[in-house]
Amino acid sequence: MHQPQTGFVIWFTGLSGAGKSTLSHRVGEELQRRLAHVEVLDGDEVRTHLSKGLGFTREDRDTNVLRIGFVSKLLARHGVAVLVAAIAPYADTRQRVRQGIERFVEVHVDCPLEELEARDVKGLYARARRGELEHFTGISDPYEAPASPEIRVDTSRHSPDESVAMILRWLEQHECIPAVRDAALADR
Amino acid sequence: MHQPQTGFVIWFTGLSGAGKSTLSHRVGEELQRRLAHVEVLDGDEVRTHLSKGLGFTREDRDTNVLRIGFVSKLLARHGVAVLVAAIAPYADTRQRVRQGIERFVEVHVDCPLEELEARDVKGLYARARRGELEHFTGISDPYEAPASPEIRVDTSRHSPDESVAMILRWLEQHECIPAVRDAALADR
Repeated sequence: MHQPQTGFVIWFTGLSGAGKSTLSHRVGEELQRRLAHVEVLDGDEVRTHLSKGLGFTREDRDTNVLRIGFVSKLLARHGVAVLVAAIAPYADTRQRVRQGIERFVEVHVDCPLEELEARDVKGLYARARRGELEHFTGISDPYEAPASPEIRVDTSRHSPDESVAMILRWLEQHECIPAVRDAALADR
Repeated sequence: MHQPQTGFVIWFTGLSGAGKSTLSHRVGEELQRRLAHVEVLDGDEVRTHLSKGLGFTREDRDTNVLRIGFVSKLLARHGVAVLVAAIAPYADTRQRVRQGIERFVEVHVDCPLEELEARDVKGLYARARRGELEHFTGISDPYEAPASPEIRVDTSRHSPDESVAMILRWLEQHECIPAVRDAALADR
């Protein structure tokens, strides 16, 4: 199986409910077909292992993001393709993480706030609007959207399949992953 | 270069000043000659990245050790040889870390307390005896020595060179690392 010398980190940033977890897991599954070493670090899961006790102040969020960045860097420098799904709302904290990592791919999982509030799968936006959740990104806490991410997907306009395809195409074009030969063509 | 499918974790446990950092770095250098992917996680360094703000109560120590264990597990399952130098004073916390890791090699870096107090390179034991340092392992905090570690080295009786050689021999015998061919013999 193809295994590049250097790994890379794909960081899915965006508001709650935009689709970061879904896309990171979907892309992770695709990468596992093409690479020997893939690891998905989902923000919610990782918080329990790395950042139990931290809250959602700016300082605590930064500590959490930098910790995930530290672990991602360790994995990537040993050839692992790391997919991180974490809001990471502050631009300069994302920048600090990027600086430590040789190949860093920022994916802005974009979706208009109105759409997210309309979906509100977990009911969190309604609770945040009622003031029941403090420090809720997009409502009572800032989100600094990436100015020039490597990839931007708009999940209000594209299906998960389309977004996954867009991300894989980018990774192929930038030689992070090998292109998959078309099975039909290969059979001729 | 030889690269096993599965990595492993070598955890150097022992009292402050016993030689955990020295041995982990020395063994790490040797492994780097034989394996493609080696990572040394030194307790003191790692604390700043993973556990800033944690203290030395039992709960905080456990959190720190489990976090290092989590990161080690991630690296090892992608084929990395991970060397950890961290006191990890509680036997059942070390046991919890071990359970998550396929190949776990516990190295007890042993040295009598009297010898460590006599050396006291950093003056920490004297300060702990004067009551200036709370929760100091071996003085005011417990250290549960491993009952049956994979390897035990006594740094009061063996030089660093001898301890490193003993650890490498064990790793060769258990096929964690390839044996190095004797250069003189290979040249015949």
